[in-house]
Amino acid sequence: MSHVNTASTMSEHLVSPSTGTLQPLGIDQVRITGGFWGERQQLNATTIIEHCEKWVEKMGWVGNFDAAIAGRLPGARTGRQFADSDVYKLIEAMAWEIGRTGDLAMDERLRALVDRIAPVQEADGYLNTNFGRRGQVGRYEDLPHGHELYCYGHLLQAAVARGRTTGDDLLVQIARRAADHLCEVFGDGGIESVCGHPEIEVGLVEFARYTNEPKYLQQAKLFIDRRGHGVLGDLELGRSYFQDDIPIRKSRAFAGHAVRATYLAAGAVDVAVETDDEELLHSVIDQLAHTVAARTYLTGGMGSRHEGEAFGGDFELPSDRAYAETCAGVGSIMLNYRLLLATGEPRYADLIERTLFNVIATAPGDDGQSFYYTNTLHQREPGEIAPTDEASMRAASSLRAPWYEVSCCPTNVARTLASLGSYFATATAEGIQLHQYAPGTVTTELDGGAVGISVATEYPNNGEVTIEVTDTIDEPWDIALRVPAWAKEGATVNVNGTIRNAGPGTVTLRETFAVGDTVQLSLPVEAHWVEPDPRIDSLRGQLAVERGPLVMCLESVDLQSGDVNAATVDRGSLTDDSGRVTVSIGSIGDVSDEWPYLDPAVMGAPTGPTTEMAPTTLTPYHAWANRGPSTMRVWMPTG
Amino acid sequence: MSHVNTASTMSEHLVSPSTGTLQPLGIDQVRITGGFWGERQQLNATTIIEHCEKWVEKMGWVGNFDAAIAGRLPGARTGRQFADSDVYKLIEAMAWEIGRTGDLAMDERLRALVDRIAPVQEADGYLNTNFGRRGQVGRYEDLPHGHELYCYGHLLQAAVARGRTTGDDLLVQIARRAADHLCEVFGDGGIESVCGHPEIEVGLVEFARYTNEPKYLQQAKLFIDRRGHGVLGDLELGRSYFQDDIPIRKSRAFAGHAVRATYLAAGAVDVAVETDDEELLHSVIDQLAHTVAARTYLTGGMGSRHEGEAFGGDFELPSDRAYAETCAGVGSIMLNYRLLLATGEPRYADLIERTLFNVIATAPGDDGQSFYYTNTLHQREPGEIAPTDEASMRAASSLRAPWYEVSCCPTNVARTLASLGSYFATATAEGIQLHQYAPGTVTTELDGGAVGISVATEYPNNGEVTIEVTDTIDEPWDIALRVPAWAKEGATVNVNGTIRNAGPGTVTLRETFAVGDTVQLSLPVEAHWVEPDPRIDSLRGQLAVERGPLVMCLESVDLQSGDVNAATVDRGSLTDDSGRVTVSIGSIGDVSDEWPYLDPAVMGAPTGPTTEMAPTTLTPYHAWANRGPSTMRVWMPTG
Repeated sequence: MSHVNTASTMSEHLVSPSTGTLQPLGIDQVRITGGFWGERQQLNATTIIEHCEKWVEKMGWVGNFDAAIAGRLPGARTGRQFADSDVYKLIEAMAWEIGRTGDLAMDERLRALVDRIAPVQEADGYLNTNFGRRGQVGRYEDLPHGHELYCYGHLLQAAVARGRTTGDDLLVQIARRAADHLCEVFGDGGIESVCGHPEIEVGLVEFARYTNEPKYLQQAKLFIDRRGHGVLGDLELGRSYFQDDIPIRKSRAFAGHAVRATYLAAGAVDVAVETDDEELLHSVIDQLAHTVAARTYLTGGMGSRHEGEAFGGDFELPSDRAYAETCAGVGSIMLNYRLLLATGEPRYADLIERTLFNVIATAPGDDGQSFYYTNTLHQREPGEIAPTDEASMRAASSLRAPWYEVSCCPTNVARTLASLGSYFATATAEGIQLHQYAPGTVTTELDGGAVGISVATEYPNNGEVTIEVTDTIDEPWDIALRVPAWAKEGATVNVNGTIRNAGPGTVTLRETFAVGDTVQLSLPVEAHWVEPDPRIDSLRGQLAVERGPLVMCLESVDLQSGDVNAATVDRGSLTDDSGRVTVSIGSIGDVSDEWPYLDPAVMGAPTGPTTEMAPTTLTPYHAWANRGPSTMRVWMPTG
Repeated sequence: MSHVNTASTMSEHLVSPSTGTLQPLGIDQVRITGGFWGERQQLNATTIIEHCEKWVEKMGWVGNFDAAIAGRLPGARTGRQFADSDVYKLIEAMAWEIGRTGDLAMDERLRALVDRIAPVQEADGYLNTNFGRRGQVGRYEDLPHGHELYCYGHLLQAAVARGRTTGDDLLVQIARRAADHLCEVFGDGGIESVCGHPEIEVGLVEFARYTNEPKYLQQAKLFIDRRGHGVLGDLELGRSYFQDDIPIRKSRAFAGHAVRATYLAAGAVDVAVETDDEELLHSVIDQLAHTVAARTYLTGGMGSRHEGEAFGGDFELPSDRAYAETCAGVGSIMLNYRLLLATGEPRYADLIERTLFNVIATAPGDDGQSFYYTNTLHQREPGEIAPTDEASMRAASSLRAPWYEVSCCPTNVARTLASLGSYFATATAEGIQLHQYAPGTVTTELDGGAVGISVATEYPNNGEVTIEVTDTIDEPWDIALRVPAWAKEGATVNVNGTIRNAGPGTVTLRETFAVGDTVQLSLPVEAHWVEPDPRIDSLRGQLAVERGPLVMCLESVDLQSGDVNAATVDRGSLTDDSGRVTVSIGSIGDVSDEWPYLDPAVMGAPTGPTTEMAPTTLTPYHAWANRGPSTMRVWMPTG
């Protein structure tokens, strides 16, 4: 009933399901060499990862491990209960980065980090700096909020990254002992519960795939099946906060804490795929479809409520209170990638693209040393500049902060950027599927031998993507290209001079390609209006602009009046001059500063903008707030 | 510099400022004898107060005092840190109620409660069941969150109620010792801080007025002046949560926790009035004006955020996440009443009316045994029925709950209803001002002797208010009537047969009235549309209906489709047949269940409702959710 694909355990795959429509490619097989994402991988390599290393030291979160050895816990411990996990996520980022670039200095630093963690592991495999010592809460006594298994999950993901890129070293050994311990304690007949924060599920399944050890998969399945039966107890936010109100098989849509929900769903897909559990797989597929239709922001951001960092109800999508946590974006990409592999459906790659360009790319500032935790779609007040030398207390900041007291997001961005290539292309026995567009190369082995392509593009600045065959075989094979859902009209594919129109979905070109053959995909990236579903109350009478995969926004620094809150837009005014997107912006007419709800029969509402409409440049959403304090909105009222 | 009005200390005044445009009348001087509010006072007398008595016992919150005496604290303590305060608020409600009705059985029960509290007071006057004992947090060691001074504030208000209605008994003695202790500890040179939750300020000023002891006023002034300088430390929600970010004199609008903000503002008005501090008074006046224009719901509800139970930014007023806590409604009424007395401006009585009919009247269910804590304007899902025999964990419930783990609201409603008369009328040397309309009587003493009126009305069912002079003097005196701001057109006043039109504001009739003279006020209560300020993004393209002071709502139990979330309203369809208000409701047209943001040039938006428009009855907002689980919305999309 359960598969583990031993063939893939030693390639540099982010995930490696044993079955599925598409096969993953490792970060060694998909290389990004420049452009929008290449720049960000470079920023990650030169700045973001080191920034995270500096801060986990500065905050004492690595020091917690030293303190454990020195017997200085609990007194010397710093950070929240889940601080260990950020060290593990950082190590995962470093491991992928070392795999990607062979950075030897970073490899030294990774080993040094692992050397400080290793001695903290107890004889039975238990590993956590926050529990179990005299003066600390006992092991597994606070499963709802303790995050012990969540920390293991990140340890296991880090170990998989290390194992697949470098080999079976000390980190993998630590992870194996932790995973064995976990199966011992939480297996059948053990503690019949789950962790308040899902993550162990994806960690265990991938570790099972990596080690070819089915008991880890079985343990993940136990966690999936136990959850949703009220095993964690109630809390003010309701059991849906940690998805313990309804078994995931029975849920209708994602609810509760958005990071937890997306991580859990990703783990459920992993379990479903490895155990041939079609019911579970299709339940998650349906829930995601519902969530995308009714609980997702234009940016791909998930989570409408600050309270509980949670999904809202259907069509509860307020721009100004969008939480859209960066980590929920990571969770959504984890999930959509797994479903893309399982089903091959391009809609998952569409959402990955949207989330990459408008959540993941938004989180780090241009400096690579500041990050958004939440990603609002409407900033009403310019707010305060985050301190540069201390961690921000507040998840929701109007400007990016260098670090947070709860700082899950920076290391999550780092590991995502370091492993980005895997999301961009996949393979089948028939050929290569290109899902995301960036300059680079893709190679894979078909039955007939190695094939390869190189990609040249300035996407998303323009929509031209040129693919050249660099390695081929003597029989037909596929180059499949995703045409994004937003490219409703005007996409074309040119294969060696033959042009044809292409609608949204997958265009598969099957040819006996020769080296040097080119395929030119042209996507209509010109700016266009977007209108919201009329069931979204908070967006009624407002329009947004997208340009290719980029959501655009109106930022106060570009606005004459300086006030985005009273802005109105002329829907006849959109221009796009090679990426310089402008619209005409006015200001809502004179309204009283008294009671704001009036009988229209007695007191007429304002009829239009009183200021001149002025052409105003829109900024890509991901680039906002790089020019000092500002206000911003994605959705603009039409009158 | 500071006044205390000794003349008023023994009348049954809710508050008794020494100066001001209008003088308060006691609950002995304004009697409500029936109608909308008489029924609710009756429900309070027969059911709500006893319900609260039962629950503070059941929850162990009175038992905490017994446990203190028996030396069973902290082990035996139940409830949150502020549980003592609910016992005090209940006692305040009982004290006013005993004053109003002379209920001897209730008087017995009040004395019994006070007898259980008295022995807990320590030798130096300190009184709290949650702090200072071995195993408890030390006295005043958690000022940001401990609520010790907040509890004193409610104790002082209860003592004032008791003192003014019954006399200087044990409760007043307890309060005096606590107040003296407080001045000792927190006076100049003492602990230079404040309580995280304002309330002590209103308590101290009123106790100063009652006792004619200026040091209590001085202490309140110290608390007002100290606050806003970061004395409480930072927290994730930001210092604005407890109004410690900006001194109240410098604030521009209410921000942070809405109950704290309104209680603090009420205390600031009290201090300003008693110390001739015009700057402070006008600062609060300006802040309230801004808050009413930009941060208040149609219902009068305040607080747009569940996170931190807080005010949002300007025009951040989402219906579906309206927190609009019942206690913030109480706080708003406390504040508006003080400003009404200080300035005489009818806009404060307007907001009191709106808040009474749409927040205070909404909180208790028809049974008087269930209460809303939050008062949303759009309930998206029918949700769960609250348990009847245990306290709800969740402040935001879709149906009223009998009690809450944090149960500030039921006792706050009880004390407000018991003392309601004082809000309805005031006096000056010139005569009587009637601010709210209910059947009943108002009496006062002018220089020339006693004057009195009786009021007959079915308001708000209809707009006819008949005032008859029941006691008079041989010289001209005023009967002043408020014409509500919503009565833009059509209000008339008929004095002994002479009819004249009246616009919103105050209509003052100055006559040498004879006993039996009548004044007939006719208010145009017929239902009318209300349109929102166009700066409120979440309400764009939506209309609401008001009928007189009542906000109306669409409840799913009245709706054929059952789905308020997709409802649209025909703005030509409003009818009002003697209070049966109907509108035509359809349903938003077919929309895809896929990605909800589309290019209108490619995919047309739905153009109108697909179902037949059907006449549908609207329900007064205060009456919703008395017919089982339902969904509800106040604002209805027009297409």
